[in-house]
Amino acid sequence: MARGLHAKPETTPERAAYYEDIAPHSMTPLWEVLHTMLRPEPVSAAVPHLWHYDALRPQVLESGNLITAEEAERRVLILENPGLKGKSCVSDALFAGLQLIMPGETAPCHRHSPAALRFIVEGSGAYTAINGEKAYMEPGDLILTPSGVWHDHGNDGDEPVVWLDGLDIPLVSFLSPVFLELYGEGKSFPADRQSGDNMARYGANMVPMGETFATGNSPVFHYPYDKTRAALLEMHRSGETDPCHGIKMEYIIPTTGGPVMPTLSTFMQFLPKGFTTETYQSTAAWIYAVVEGEGRTMVGDETLEWGPRDIFVVPAWLPHHHEASADSFAFSFSDRGLHQKLGLYRERRGNQTN
Amino acid sequence: MARGLHAKPETTPERAAYYEDIAPHSMTPLWEVLHTMLRPEPVSAAVPHLWHYDALRPQVLESGNLITAEEAERRVLILENPGLKGKSCVSDALFAGLQLIMPGETAPCHRHSPAALRFIVEGSGAYTAINGEKAYMEPGDLILTPSGVWHDHGNDGDEPVVWLDGLDIPLVSFLSPVFLELYGEGKSFPADRQSGDNMARYGANMVPMGETFATGNSPVFHYPYDKTRAALLEMHRSGETDPCHGIKMEYIIPTTGGPVMPTLSTFMQFLPKGFTTETYQSTAAWIYAVVEGEGRTMVGDETLEWGPRDIFVVPAWLPHHHEASADSFAFSFSDRGLHQKLGLYRERRGNQTN
Amino acid sequence: MARGLHAKPETTPERAAYYEDIAPHSMTPLWEVLHTMLRPEPVSAAVPHLWHYDALRPQVLESGNLITAEEAERRVLILENPGLKGKSCVSDALFAGLQLIMPGETAPCHRHSPAALRFIVEGSGAYTAINGEKAYMEPGDLILTPSGVWHDHGNDGDEPVVWLDGLDIPLVSFLSPVFLELYGEGKSFPADRQSGDNMARYGANMVPMGETFATGNSPVFHYPYDKTRAALLEMHRSGETDPCHGIKMEYIIPTTGGPVMPTLSTFMQFLPKGFTTETYQSTAAWIYAVVEGEGRTMVGDETLEWGPRDIFVVPAWLPHHHEASADSFAFSFSDRGLHQKLGLYRERRGNQTN
Amino acid sequence: MARGLHAKPETTPERAAYYEDIAPHSMTPLWEVLHTMLRPEPVSAAVPHLWHYDALRPQVLESGNLITAEEAERRVLILENPGLKGKSCVSDALFAGLQLIMPGETAPCHRHSPAALRFIVEGSGAYTAINGEKAYMEPGDLILTPSGVWHDHGNDGDEPVVWLDGLDIPLVSFLSPVFLELYGEGKSFPADRQSGDNMARYGANMVPMGETFATGNSPVFHYPYDKTRAALLEMHRSGETDPCHGIKMEYIIPTTGGPVMPTLSTFMQFLPKGFTTETYQSTAAWIYAVVEGEGRTMVGDETLEWGPRDIFVVPAWLPHHHEASADSFAFSFSDRGLHQKLGLYRERRGNQTN
Repeated sequence: MARGLHAKPETTPERAAYYEDIAPHSMTPLWEVLHTMLRPEPVSAAVPHLWHYDALRPQVLESGNLITAEEAERRVLILENPGLKGKSCVSDALFAGLQLIMPGETAPCHRHSPAALRFIVEGSGAYTAINGEKAYMEPGDLILTPSGVWHDHGNDGDEPVVWLDGLDIPLVSFLSPVFLELYGEGKSFPADRQSGDNMARYGANMVPMGETFATGNSPVFHYPYDKTRAALLEMHRSGETDPCHGIKMEYIIPTTGGPVMPTLSTFMQFLPKGFTTETYQSTAAWIYAVVEGEGRTMVGDETLEWGPRDIFVVPAWLPHHHEASADSFAFSFSDRGLHQKLGLYRERRGNQTN
Repeated sequence: MARGLHAKPETTPERAAYYEDIAPHSMTPLWEVLHTMLRPEPVSAAVPHLWHYDALRPQVLESGNLITAEEAERRVLILENPGLKGKSCVSDALFAGLQLIMPGETAPCHRHSPAALRFIVEGSGAYTAINGEKAYMEPGDLILTPSGVWHDHGNDGDEPVVWLDGLDIPLVSFLSPVFLELYGEGKSFPADRQSGDNMARYGANMVPMGETFATGNSPVFHYPYDKTRAALLEMHRSGETDPCHGIKMEYIIPTTGGPVMPTLSTFMQFLPKGFTTETYQSTAAWIYAVVEGEGRTMVGDETLEWGPRDIFVVPAWLPHHHEASADSFAFSFSDRGLHQKLGLYRERRGNQTN
Repeated sequence: MARGLHAKPETTPERAAYYEDIAPHSMTPLWEVLHTMLRPEPVSAAVPHLWHYDALRPQVLESGNLITAEEAERRVLILENPGLKGKSCVSDALFAGLQLIMPGETAPCHRHSPAALRFIVEGSGAYTAINGEKAYMEPGDLILTPSGVWHDHGNDGDEPVVWLDGLDIPLVSFLSPVFLELYGEGKSFPADRQSGDNMARYGANMVPMGETFATGNSPVFHYPYDKTRAALLEMHRSGETDPCHGIKMEYIIPTTGGPVMPTLSTFMQFLPKGFTTETYQSTAAWIYAVVEGEGRTMVGDETLEWGPRDIFVVPAWLPHHHEASADSFAFSFSDRGLHQKLGLYRERRGNQTN
Repeated sequence: MARGLHAKPETTPERAAYYEDIAPHSMTPLWEVLHTMLRPEPVSAAVPHLWHYDALRPQVLESGNLITAEEAERRVLILENPGLKGKSCVSDALFAGLQLIMPGETAPCHRHSPAALRFIVEGSGAYTAINGEKAYMEPGDLILTPSGVWHDHGNDGDEPVVWLDGLDIPLVSFLSPVFLELYGEGKSFPADRQSGDNMARYGANMVPMGETFATGNSPVFHYPYDKTRAALLEMHRSGETDPCHGIKMEYIIPTTGGPVMPTLSTFMQFLPKGFTTETYQSTAAWIYAVVEGEGRTMVGDETLEWGPRDIFVVPAWLPHHHEASADSFAFSFSDRGLHQKLGLYRERRGNQTN
């Protein structure tokens, strides 16, 4: 049987003196902390948590009265992991929030190095414009604003619109390279291309002849729910269901086949009524947003009961499985692609690790 | 001014004797042939040519009476370049033919190392099955049978179906690695997946989570014309037209962004009524199949007048341009991607080479 | 002129009440913290710092008396950034330490998901064995122990050996996927290949025919100083000197051309006597280990005077430049490649950003 | 048992009339030629052949008297495959020739789209200059002049120098994109970098920081024999010998790990005295140039007895094996990488195909 690391060695008076001696030289002994730095398996302070949308909805809408869009820049309520208080994040490396935009409001154009996704929770008529091209939102749609692209929001409709913001801000802050730039005097970016152009140009399994692509981000930035939903159901008809995931598809960059952004991977999942998945655990964290259906997810010792528009987080390396009591569709985002890119992704399916 | 290569040196009696001397040793002097092997610019024996579909159609249909599908294996009329007689090819490296399949016929399942594409010219109700998954044909559809995949054809409908076959057989024969394998006793491949599964699974800007891909060939093998046509028109609405190509899109592998097969690149082009392109020339050969519209293409000194279902070839390095007298859609395939992969593709747009 | 983000909105009593209201639901207002999360340019708590090797050497050697290799697992003194007290790191995402191994000692074999490099500071006769193949150390050598490879150390010589450890532990801890595994009962890994095999097999611009490679890590893991030094001097003879870097070369994976490990980039730099570089700043942090020569590096407002075997850190986004008062060779490692992989690397050369 | 393709159908008078009918329309029936176009396994007209250098040497040297370098542009004797008479090629897609350059001669600078390699057979003191950087030749050295780079030759020494030229001219001619450009008025390219710079800059497992690379061709263009030979012997010491190849290493592009040029793969092989390889066959053709040692190669039914400086060709898909009667080093080049790039490479080792 493999032994573990030694606990830290005894702190003799002689050693204690030595540690004080070297401290002014900005040196500390590794052997005092090694056992906390290197453990056999991942440990995260993040905890599983579920936000019931119906319970929060009144408060989300109230924020529309409490603060103007202009005052807030972005009117967002952070979904903060209870295990990571004060850190403004939903998992160690990821941020999630609910953003509200009221009819007639606009949010000024800017760009930043952190990457963002918007997953529409309720309402229609609002848009995100990416480099001036408007993506009009419907519930279940995924919209990307990758690192460094100009974007602004607006609501041309007549109802409040709420979406889930997912960002890699905690990661990019940790790494340092946070940049922010505002566009002009808070103006909108000029519109060159019509709404839907990105999907026609890059999302129909074709690309303009001779166009070349930077590989980091997707040229498609609006993935409508109706197409996504139809693809999942069509795939389900062929009957190949993953024991751990049901029917789970990843949104891809159609010019590379990879995750839509280097740090954020995105998925839609179909769990047929009555389906129970096998246990899965991975080094990545997963933030789920339920679109349709209901069921529960057992994460470690917790049971999270979910229904439409609920949001929940599965922290890194916690074994979990799902049970669907109705045909269910759930969106999720994750830092899985980041871990894979760095050679750090591991998963355990049922009892098998690789 | 840069000088050209010397012509071959004078053949003195002494040299002639030497050449005879070395011949039995399987050696010959390079300087006798160098000026034909290395020229300043490409020279091809292939010529521009157009096949008027209406003129050929009766003969194509007559082949259905003349020979059974079983006798013929594949009932195909080769479109042979008049400059390359007896070589069974439409350009130096590519093959084109018209295949006819009558109602109720099937063609046995096989696979081979040459890659093939089918572009549907007329009729519906026939299919190509790739590894057992049937792709039902409509005019304007593109269907791929890449190198090494099992495929068979059939016609479940009640009318003759004709398609254009495009293959890399001349290239693969030249290189040597031609392999052919018949499936069982001429049986069909067992069907595991439903028709349309490939598009749902890989063609909706999503892929099944965790699936990995070989990079050579497209997991999508059926590109329906209605989607292609819609994408071109949508892109046209944004008003960005290429001077040499109009609106020209390349079919891609959605998991790499590259050409659909390593040796065959495929395109659909929209030329609005009245549009005249600038002159273009490239090291690749281009085989066009008109779907809708009419116009003409000037290739070198020749004028090719085309209408629906006509097929024509533009050989390598010949300057050419198009004039559309009606809104026109034209499919084309080419060895462009092959040239690019080998660092050999060059083009000249108007007066600019790169 | 572009305006900055608004400061946080006034906290009215009404709003304060609202914030208390939503807190139990694990929600907090983004607009209270947004201005600290998104700033125009990177801000890091890390500070520039230099460790004078001659001043530290007695203490490093004393650790050999104070604690046995067995007690310590690895006898390492952490070089802790004074701006990041208690975090055991040299920059936000990187770890550096000085490791001492005494004659006759061995350290048990293990593997872990964090990646490590060793840069030899003094002494010879010690080795790191990677999957059983021993790399014998000389000052100035670089040895890699990438994520997941078995490794152990020993000192077969008769003098103490000290090396600089560089790791990505802070990053991997932040992301979660820390794994550690000890080999057998603290045994060494069985030796299959002779010392130097990795360089012969992959480092001579050749590879064994038919061998395929995972792309993440370098199959070469020992880069001897004499070859590195000779390459820099040879390149210097061609007279192409980078204004910001002098002659600076990156160690690469010879089967990809990329950084030696996904999270750690490594460099050797030659600054000729009298050379002063232009100002450079980047989103990455840089840890330098001087091998030969002397000079100074101005980082922000600080001047770091360095000589042989000194170690210093340049935190993210601080403008800095070097002055060499003698022909100087300096090794450095950085998270540059990580930033590049994520599309987050930016640099400013003189007055130009990109 | 799988059946083969039908032989061609009977040519009835009716069919003969039909064939005449369609011929003016540039159409021919595929079923008349299909069985010759698609066969179960590759068939090549090329035959195995060996050129004994000692027997040819007097003739090669005599060419120095017979024709001036200026008259010949390049004084090369083509090694023509006896199965491919009049085609100026050594295998279906490759060219080989012996080039002689006499002391004091120079050959004018040019560039062309076909790619070339030079493998030095005898003599020293000559050079190839690539973009002005001279690579001085010693026997056993490999020098590359990839597609599109300026190159010229000269002999600064006092003895004749002979090398083996390997090119992809037959392939590039077949595909069309042959381009040739002469430099100035037959002048040499200006020398910017010193001899050896390419190896220092890219061949020491390092690259200049920040330099980016086109992926098609190797930035290293001179691979000296002493390094190659040492690597093979070093690798042999670890005792891992390939049953089909002995110790066989491929020259790589150090910034990609791939073959040195897109169409030409290059190898050096060590066969210890007494070693007999297992049978191997592949879709690629192989041209061998023996450096040291002696032995024989059985190709199909032929036995080729070889010694130092002999050259022989193994055509596509012929089973072959080697027997070394002395410690032997043999260089080879091949279109293997081209086949791999196109997904067409297959090999059979002993009795196993894949």
